[in-house]
Amino acid sequence: MIKISIKGLIEVFSKLPNLGPSSSRRLVLHLLRNKEKTMIPLSQYIIALAEQIVSCQFCGNFDVISPCNICQDKKRNQKSLCVVEDLGDLWAFERGGIYSGLYHVLGGTLSAIDGVGPESLNLDGLRDRITLNGVEEVIIATNATLDGQVTAHYITELIKGSGAKVSRLACGIPIGGEIDYLDEGTLKAALVSRHEVES
Amino acid sequence: MIKISIKGLIEVFSKLPNLGPSSSRRLVLHLLRNKEKTMIPLSQYIIALAEQIVSCQFCGNFDVISPCNICQDKKRNQKSLCVVEDLGDLWAFERGGIYSGLYHVLGGTLSAIDGVGPESLNLDGLRDRITLNGVEEVIIATNATLDGQVTAHYITELIKGSGAKVSRLACGIPIGGEIDYLDEGTLKAALVSRHEVES
Repeated sequence: MIKISIKGLIEVFSKLPNLGPSSSRRLVLHLLRNKEKTMIPLSQYIIALAEQIVSCQFCGNFDVISPCNICQDKKRNQKSLCVVEDLGDLWAFERGGIYSGLYHVLGGTLSAIDGVGPESLNLDGLRDRITLNGVEEVIIATNATLDGQVTAHYITELIKGSGAKVSRLACGIPIGGEIDYLDEGTLKAALVSRHEVES
Repeated sequence: MIKISIKGLIEVFSKLPNLGPSSSRRLVLHLLRNKEKTMIPLSQYIIALAEQIVSCQFCGNFDVISPCNICQDKKRNQKSLCVVEDLGDLWAFERGGIYSGLYHVLGGTLSAIDGVGPESLNLDGLRDRITLNGVEEVIIATNATLDGQVTAHYITELIKGSGAKVSRLACGIPIGGEIDYLDEGTLKAALVSRHEVES
Protein backbone atom coordinates (compact mmCIF):
# COMPACT_ATOMS: atom_id res chain seq x y z
CA MET A 1 0.00 0.00 0.00
CA ILE A 2 1.50 3.32 -1.01
CA LYS A 3 1.32 6.23 1.38
CA ILE A 4 -1.38 8.67 0.38
CA SER A 5 -0.73 12.39 0.80
CA ILE A 6 -1.79 15.70 -0.70
CA LYS A 7 1.78 16.21 -1.89
CA GLY A 8 1.66 12.80 -3.52
CA LEU A 9 -1.43 13.67 -5.55
CA ILE A 10 0.14 16.96 -6.64
CA GLU A 11 3.17 14.99 -7.84
CA VAL A 12 1.01 12.50 -9.73
CA PHE A 13 -0.86 15.33 -11.47
CA SER A 14 2.31 17.28 -12.23
CA LYS A 15 3.60 14.38 -14.31
CA LEU A 16 0.60 14.59 -16.63
CA PRO A 17 0.82 16.62 -19.84
CA ASN A 18 0.08 20.36 -19.61
CA LEU A 19 0.27 20.28 -15.82
CA GLY A 20 3.30 21.65 -14.03
CA PRO A 21 3.79 21.87 -10.26
CA SER A 22 1.88 25.18 -9.92
CA SER A 23 -1.15 24.14 -11.91
CA SER A 24 -1.23 20.77 -10.16
CA ARG A 25 -1.25 22.53 -6.82
CA ARG A 26 -4.16 24.68 -7.89
CA LEU A 27 -5.95 21.65 -9.24
CA VAL A 28 -5.53 19.61 -6.05
CA LEU A 29 -6.49 22.62 -3.95
CA HIS A 30 -9.69 22.91 -5.98
CA LEU A 31 -10.39 19.20 -5.56
CA LEU A 32 -9.81 19.33 -1.79
CA ARG A 33 -12.10 22.32 -1.46
CA ASN A 34 -14.80 20.52 -3.43
CA LYS A 35 -14.45 17.00 -2.12
CA GLU A 36 -18.06 15.89 -2.46
CA LYS A 37 -18.92 17.90 -5.54
CA THR A 38 -15.82 17.38 -7.66
CA MET A 39 -13.08 15.21 -6.17
CA ILE A 40 -15.08 12.02 -5.57
CA PRO A 41 -17.20 12.27 -8.76
CA LEU A 42 -14.05 12.90 -10.84
CA SER A 43 -12.31 9.80 -9.53
CA GLN A 44 -15.45 7.74 -10.06
CA TYR A 45 -15.77 9.05 -13.61
CA ILE A 46 -12.18 8.18 -14.44
CA ILE A 47 -12.43 4.66 -13.05
CA ALA A 48 -15.78 4.06 -14.78
CA LEU A 49 -14.37 5.22 -18.10
CA ALA A 50 -11.22 3.14 -17.61
CA GLU A 51 -13.40 0.09 -17.07
CA GLN A 52 -15.60 0.69 -20.10
CA ILE A 53 -13.06 1.92 -22.62
CA VAL A 54 -12.16 -0.45 -25.43
CA SER A 55 -10.19 -0.22 -28.63
CA CYS A 56 -12.49 -0.51 -31.65
CA GLN A 57 -11.99 -3.88 -33.34
CA PHE A 58 -12.05 -2.27 -36.78
CA CYS A 59 -10.36 1.11 -36.63
CA GLY A 60 -8.46 1.13 -33.33
CA ASN A 61 -10.36 4.18 -32.03
CA PHE A 62 -11.06 4.25 -28.29
CA ASP A 63 -14.73 4.19 -27.31
CA VAL A 64 -17.06 2.62 -24.76
CA ILE A 65 -18.34 0.26 -27.47
CA SER A 66 -16.72 -1.80 -30.19
CA PRO A 67 -17.28 -1.28 -33.12
CA CYS A 68 -16.94 2.36 -32.11
CA ASN A 69 -19.59 5.03 -32.69
CA ILE A 70 -17.81 6.22 -35.82
CA CYS A 71 -17.58 2.75 -37.38
CA GLN A 72 -21.25 2.11 -36.52
CA ASP A 73 -22.44 5.38 -38.03
CA LYS A 74 -24.15 4.40 -41.27
CA LYS A 75 -24.41 8.04 -42.34
CA ARG A 76 -20.66 8.20 -42.76
CA ASN A 77 -18.99 7.43 -46.07
CA GLN A 78 -17.99 3.76 -45.74
CA LYS A 79 -15.88 3.96 -48.90
CA SER A 80 -13.39 6.46 -47.53
CA LEU A 81 -10.71 5.60 -44.99
CA CYS A 82 -8.48 8.14 -43.27
CA VAL A 83 -5.35 6.60 -41.77
CA VAL A 84 -4.12 8.57 -38.74
CA GLU A 85 -1.20 8.01 -36.38
CA ASP A 86 -3.02 8.52 -33.18
CA LEU A 87 -6.32 9.06 -31.41
CA GLY A 88 -5.55 12.78 -31.02
CA ASP A 89 -5.34 13.13 -34.80
CA LEU A 90 -8.73 11.47 -35.21
CA TRP A 91 -10.14 13.91 -32.65
CA ALA A 92 -8.64 16.82 -34.58
CA PHE A 93 -10.48 15.75 -37.75
CA GLU A 94 -13.71 15.20 -35.82
CA ARG A 95 -13.44 18.59 -34.10
CA GLY A 96 -13.21 20.28 -37.42
CA GLY A 97 -16.21 18.32 -38.72
CA ILE A 98 -14.33 18.28 -42.02
CA TYR A 99 -14.34 14.58 -42.78
CA SER A 100 -17.26 12.19 -42.93
CA GLY A 101 -15.57 8.89 -43.80
CA LEU A 102 -14.13 6.24 -41.50
CA TYR A 103 -10.74 6.13 -39.79
CA HIS A 104 -7.92 3.75 -39.18
CA VAL A 105 -5.79 4.54 -36.13
CA LEU A 106 -2.23 3.20 -36.40
CA GLY A 107 -1.24 3.80 -32.80
CA GLY A 108 2.08 5.38 -33.72
CA THR A 109 4.53 5.51 -36.59
CA LEU A 110 7.34 3.36 -37.81
CA SER A 111 10.54 4.54 -36.19
CA ALA A 112 14.00 3.18 -36.80
CA ILE A 113 15.41 5.10 -33.84
CA ASP A 114 12.77 3.92 -31.37
CA GLY A 115 12.73 0.44 -32.87
CA VAL A 116 9.06 0.54 -33.86
CA GLY A 117 8.40 -1.90 -36.71
CA PRO A 118 5.20 -2.59 -38.67
CA GLU A 119 4.20 -5.33 -36.20
CA SER A 120 3.81 -2.71 -33.44
CA LEU A 121 1.25 -0.75 -35.44
CA ASN A 122 -2.40 -1.45 -36.15
CA LEU A 123 -1.65 -2.51 -39.73
CA ASP A 124 -2.74 -6.14 -39.75
CA GLY A 125 -6.36 -5.57 -40.65
CA LEU A 126 -5.84 -2.57 -42.89
CA ARG A 127 -5.51 -4.30 -46.25
CA ASP A 128 -8.39 -6.69 -45.53
CA ARG A 129 -10.53 -3.81 -44.38
CA ILE A 130 -9.94 -1.98 -47.65
CA THR A 131 -10.65 -5.04 -49.80
CA LEU A 132 -13.65 -6.39 -47.87
CA ASN A 133 -15.44 -3.05 -47.59
CA GLY A 134 -14.64 -1.92 -51.12
CA VAL A 135 -12.94 1.23 -49.85
CA GLU A 136 -12.47 3.63 -52.74
CA GLU A 137 -10.07 6.14 -51.23
CA VAL A 138 -7.46 5.83 -48.51
CA ILE A 139 -6.28 9.20 -47.18
CA ILE A 140 -2.96 8.79 -45.41
CA ALA A 141 -3.00 11.53 -42.78
CA THR A 142 0.24 10.84 -40.92
CA ASN A 143 2.22 13.77 -39.57
CA ALA A 144 4.54 15.70 -41.85
CA THR A 145 7.52 14.46 -39.84
CA LEU A 146 10.23 12.08 -40.99
CA ASP A 147 8.62 9.10 -39.23
CA GLY A 148 5.22 10.14 -40.52
CA GLN A 149 6.51 10.26 -44.09
CA VAL A 150 8.23 6.88 -43.78
CA THR A 151 5.03 5.35 -42.39
CA ALA A 152 2.96 6.89 -45.17
CA HIS A 153 5.34 5.41 -47.73
CA TYR A 154 5.15 2.00 -46.07
CA ILE A 155 1.34 2.04 -46.05
CA THR A 156 1.25 3.12 -49.68
CA GLU A 157 3.33 0.04 -50.58
CA LEU A 158 1.28 -2.19 -48.28
CA ILE A 159 -2.06 -1.40 -49.85
CA LYS A 160 -0.83 -1.22 -53.44
CA GLY A 161 -3.10 -3.27 -55.65
CA SER A 162 -6.03 -3.17 -53.25
CA GLY A 163 -7.95 -1.08 -55.75
CA ALA A 164 -8.31 1.97 -53.56
CA LYS A 165 -7.05 5.38 -54.57
CA VAL A 166 -4.37 6.54 -52.14
CA SER A 167 -3.93 10.20 -51.26
CA ARG A 168 -1.90 12.24 -48.79
CA LEU A 169 -2.62 15.51 -47.02
CA ALA A 170 -1.23 18.60 -48.73
CA CYS A 171 1.73 20.42 -47.21
CA GLY A 172 2.01 24.20 -47.37
CA ILE A 173 1.49 27.45 -45.49
CA PRO A 174 -0.93 27.12 -42.56
CA ILE A 175 -4.01 29.32 -42.94
CA GLY A 176 -3.23 32.60 -41.22
CA GLY A 177 0.47 31.78 -41.33
CA GLU A 178 3.09 34.39 -42.17
CA ILE A 179 5.80 33.49 -44.65
CA ASP A 180 8.40 35.37 -42.65
CA TYR A 181 7.96 32.94 -39.76
CA LEU A 182 7.84 29.70 -41.76
CA ASP A 183 10.60 27.14 -41.76
CA GLU A 184 12.31 26.44 -45.08
CA GLY A 185 10.81 22.95 -45.39
CA THR A 186 7.25 24.22 -45.27
CA LEU A 187 8.03 27.09 -47.61
CA LYS A 188 9.65 24.71 -50.07
CA ALA A 189 6.62 22.37 -49.91
CA ALA A 190 4.30 25.32 -50.53
CA LEU A 191 6.40 26.44 -53.48
CA VAL A 192 6.60 22.97 -55.02
CA SER A 193 2.85 22.45 -54.66
CA ARG A 194 1.95 25.92 -55.98
CA HIS A 195 -1.13 25.97 -58.14
CA GLU A 196 -2.13 28.16 -61.02
CA VAL A 197 -4.79 30.75 -60.42
CA GLU A 198 -7.22 31.90 -63.02
CA SER A 199 -6.59 35.44 -64.14
CA MET B 1 -26.41 6.43 -13.64
CA ILE B 2 -24.82 9.05 -15.83
CA LYS B 3 -23.62 8.11 -19.30
CA ILE B 4 -19.86 7.71 -19.35
CA SER B 5 -17.94 8.91 -22.42
CA ILE B 6 -14.51 10.17 -23.35
CA LYS B 7 -16.08 13.52 -24.24
CA GLY B 8 -17.71 13.58 -20.80
CA LEU B 9 -14.38 13.18 -19.02
CA ILE B 10 -12.83 15.92 -21.15
CA GLU B 11 -15.70 18.20 -20.12
CA VAL B 12 -15.27 17.34 -16.44
CA PHE B 13 -11.54 18.11 -16.61
CA SER B 14 -12.05 21.31 -18.59
CA LYS B 15 -14.09 22.77 -15.73
CA LEU B 16 -11.16 22.44 -13.34
CA PRO B 17 -8.78 25.37 -12.79
CA ASN B 18 -5.89 25.79 -15.26
CA LEU B 19 -7.43 23.27 -17.66
CA GLY B 20 -9.12 24.45 -20.83
CA PRO B 21 -10.64 22.24 -23.53
CA SER B 22 -7.31 21.68 -25.33
CA SER B 23 -5.29 20.75 -22.28
CA SER B 24 -8.12 18.53 -21.04
CA ARG B 25 -8.13 16.72 -24.37
CA ARG B 26 -4.38 16.12 -24.11
CA LEU B 27 -4.78 14.99 -20.54
CA VAL B 28 -7.55 12.51 -21.31
CA LEU B 29 -5.64 11.28 -24.36
CA HIS B 30 -2.65 10.63 -22.13
CA LEU B 31 -4.83 8.80 -19.61
CA LEU B 32 -6.45 6.64 -22.28
CA ARG B 33 -3.07 5.73 -23.71
CA ASN B 34 -1.81 4.78 -20.27
CA LYS B 35 -4.87 3.10 -18.83
CA GLU B 36 -3.13 0.61 -16.55
CA LYS B 37 -0.12 2.72 -15.69
CA THR B 38 -1.73 6.10 -15.08
CA MET B 39 -5.51 6.28 -15.51
CA ILE B 40 -6.55 3.62 -12.99
CA PRO B 41 -3.86 4.49 -10.38
CA LEU B 42 -4.76 8.19 -10.62
CA SER B 43 -8.44 7.57 -9.95
CA GLN B 44 -7.57 5.24 -7.08
CA TYR B 45 -5.22 7.83 -5.61
CA ILE B 46 -7.87 10.56 -5.77
CA ILE B 47 -10.54 8.43 -4.15
CA ALA B 48 -8.13 7.21 -1.44
CA LEU B 49 -7.09 10.76 -0.65
CA ALA B 50 -10.69 11.95 -0.63
CA GLU B 51 -11.53 9.23 1.90
CA GLN B 52 -8.59 10.01 4.17
CA ILE B 53 -8.50 13.78 4.04
CA VAL B 54 -9.65 15.64 7.12
CA SER B 55 -9.60 19.21 8.31
CA CYS B 56 -7.18 19.65 11.22
CA GLN B 57 -9.11 20.17 14.47
CA PHE B 58 -6.75 22.95 15.54
CA CYS B 59 -5.65 24.93 12.51
CA GLY B 60 -8.09 23.99 9.74
CA ASN B 61 -5.32 22.68 7.46
CA PHE B 62 -6.19 19.66 5.30
CA ASP B 63 -4.21 16.52 6.00
CA VAL B 64 -4.66 12.76 6.29
CA ILE B 65 -4.38 13.07 10.07
CA SER B 66 -5.81 15.44 12.68
CA PRO B 67 -4.01 17.20 14.38
CA CYS B 68 -2.19 17.78 11.08
CA ASN B 69 1.51 17.15 10.52
CA ILE B 70 2.30 20.82 11.06
CA CYS B 71 0.42 21.06 14.37
CA GLN B 72 2.06 17.82 15.54
CA ASP B 73 5.57 18.98 14.66
CA LYS B 74 7.21 19.76 18.00
CA LYS B 75 10.19 21.35 16.23
CA ARG B 76 8.01 24.22 15.08
CA ASN B 77 7.64 27.37 17.13
CA GLN B 78 4.42 26.78 19.11
CA LYS B 79 4.34 30.40 20.23
CA SER B 80 3.87 31.86 16.76
CA LEU B 81 0.61 31.67 14.82
CA CYS B 82 0.22 32.73 11.20
CA VAL B 83 -3.40 33.37 10.23
CA VAL B 84 -4.00 32.70 6.51
CA GLU B 85 -7.13 32.91 4.40
CA ASP B 86 -6.80 29.64 2.66
CA LEU B 87 -4.93 26.36 2.30
CA GLY B 88 -3.13 27.67 -0.77
CA ASP B 89 -1.64 30.50 1.30
CA LEU B 90 -0.37 28.01 3.88
CA TRP B 91 1.23 26.02 1.07
CA ALA B 92 2.89 29.17 -0.24
CA PHE B 93 4.54 29.79 3.14
CA GLU B 94 5.58 26.15 3.43
CA ARG B 95 7.01 26.14 -0.10
CA GLY B 96 9.20 29.04 0.79
CA GLY B 97 10.32 27.35 3.98
CA ILE B 98 10.32 30.86 5.46
CA TYR B 99 8.14 30.30 8.49
CA SER B 100 8.50 27.76 11.25
CA GLY B 101 5.53 28.52 13.50
CA LEU B 102 1.98 27.18 13.36
CA TYR B 103 -0.92 28.26 11.18
CA HIS B 104 -4.56 29.06 11.45
CA VAL B 105 -6.54 28.64 8.24
CA LEU B 106 -9.64 30.83 8.10
CA GLY B 107 -11.23 29.22 5.06
CA GLY B 108 -12.03 32.54 3.41
CA THR B 109 -12.47 36.20 4.26
CA LEU B 110 -15.29 38.30 5.57
CA SER B 111 -17.19 39.68 2.63
CA ALA B 112 -20.11 42.04 2.76
CA ILE B 113 -20.86 41.52 -0.93
CA ASP B 114 -20.84 37.73 -0.77
CA GLY B 115 -22.58 37.73 2.61
CA VAL B 116 -19.74 35.96 4.44
CA GLY B 117 -19.89 36.76 8.15
CA PRO B 118 -17.52 35.74 10.99
CA GLU B 119 -19.60 32.60 11.66
CA SER B 120 -18.62 31.22 8.24
CA LEU B 121 -14.92 31.40 9.03
CA ASN B 122 -12.73 29.23 11.25
CA LEU B 123 -12.61 31.87 13.98
CA ASP B 124 -14.31 30.10 16.89
CA GLY B 125 -11.25 28.44 18.32
CA LEU B 126 -8.76 31.19 17.48
CA ARG B 127 -8.88 33.22 20.70
CA ASP B 128 -8.84 30.10 22.88
CA ARG B 129 -5.96 28.70 20.90
CA ILE B 130 -3.93 31.84 21.50
CA THR B 131 -4.71 31.95 25.22
CA LEU B 132 -4.35 28.23 25.99
CA ASN B 133 -1.10 27.81 24.11
CA GLY B 134 0.42 31.06 25.27
CA VAL B 135 0.93 32.25 21.70
CA GLU B 136 3.28 35.22 21.71
CA GLU B 137 2.83 36.52 18.19
CA VAL B 138 -0.07 36.34 15.76
CA ILE B 139 0.92 37.19 12.20
CA ILE B 140 -2.16 38.09 10.19
CA ALA B 141 -1.30 37.06 6.65
CA THR B 142 -4.54 37.77 4.84
CA ASN B 143 -4.39 39.02 1.25
CA ALA B 144 -3.78 42.69 0.55
CA THR B 145 -7.30 42.98 -0.87
CA LEU B 146 -10.22 44.90 0.56
CA ASP B 147 -11.81 41.78 2.06
CA GLY B 148 -8.42 40.67 3.34
CA GLN B 149 -7.88 44.01 5.08
CA VAL B 150 -11.33 43.97 6.62
CA THR B 151 -10.78 40.45 7.89
CA ALA B 152 -7.39 41.38 9.33
CA HIS B 153 -8.98 44.30 11.13
CA TYR B 154 -11.73 42.07 12.52
CA ILE B 155 -9.23 39.51 13.80
CA THR B 156 -7.12 42.22 15.40
CA GLU B 157 -10.18 43.33 17.36
CA LEU B 158 -11.18 39.76 18.17
CA ILE B 159 -7.88 38.81 19.75
CA LYS B 160 -7.25 42.12 21.49
CA GLY B 161 -6.34 41.52 25.10
CA SER B 162 -5.22 37.93 24.51
CA GLY B 163 -1.68 38.95 25.33
CA ALA B 164 -0.22 38.10 21.94
CA LYS B 165 1.59 40.62 19.80
CA VAL B 166 -0.27 41.10 16.52
CA SER B 167 1.54 41.84 13.27
CA ARG B 168 0.67 42.09 9.59
CA LEU B 169 2.66 41.35 6.45
CA ALA B 170 4.43 44.33 4.92
CA CYS B 171 3.15 45.82 1.66
CA GLY B 172 5.56 47.17 -0.95
CA ILE B 173 7.36 46.47 -4.19
CA PRO B 174 7.62 42.74 -4.99
CA ILE B 175 11.25 41.57 -5.18
CA GLY B 176 12.29 41.87 -8.82
CA GLY B 177 9.35 44.20 -9.46
CA GLU B 178 9.70 47.25 -11.67
CA ILE B 179 8.25 50.52 -10.40
CA ASP B 180 7.05 51.45 -13.88
CA TYR B 181 4.67 48.48 -13.88
CA LEU B 182 3.34 48.84 -10.33
CA ASP B 183 -0.16 49.96 -9.49
CA GLU B 184 -0.51 53.18 -7.50
CA GLY B 185 -1.74 51.38 -4.37
CA THR B 186 1.40 49.27 -4.09
CA LEU B 187 3.64 52.22 -4.87
CA LYS B 188 1.92 54.30 -2.21
CA ALA B 189 2.29 51.49 0.35
CA ALA B 190 5.97 51.19 -0.49
CA LEU B 191 6.43 54.93 -0.12
CA VAL B 192 4.58 55.11 3.20
CA SER B 193 6.54 52.18 4.62
CA ARG B 194 9.92 53.48 3.39
CA HIS B 195 12.78 52.89 5.77
CA GLU B 196 15.91 54.81 6.42
CA VAL B 197 19.17 53.37 5.18
CA GLU B 198 22.46 53.85 6.87
CA SER B 199 24.80 56.03 4.90
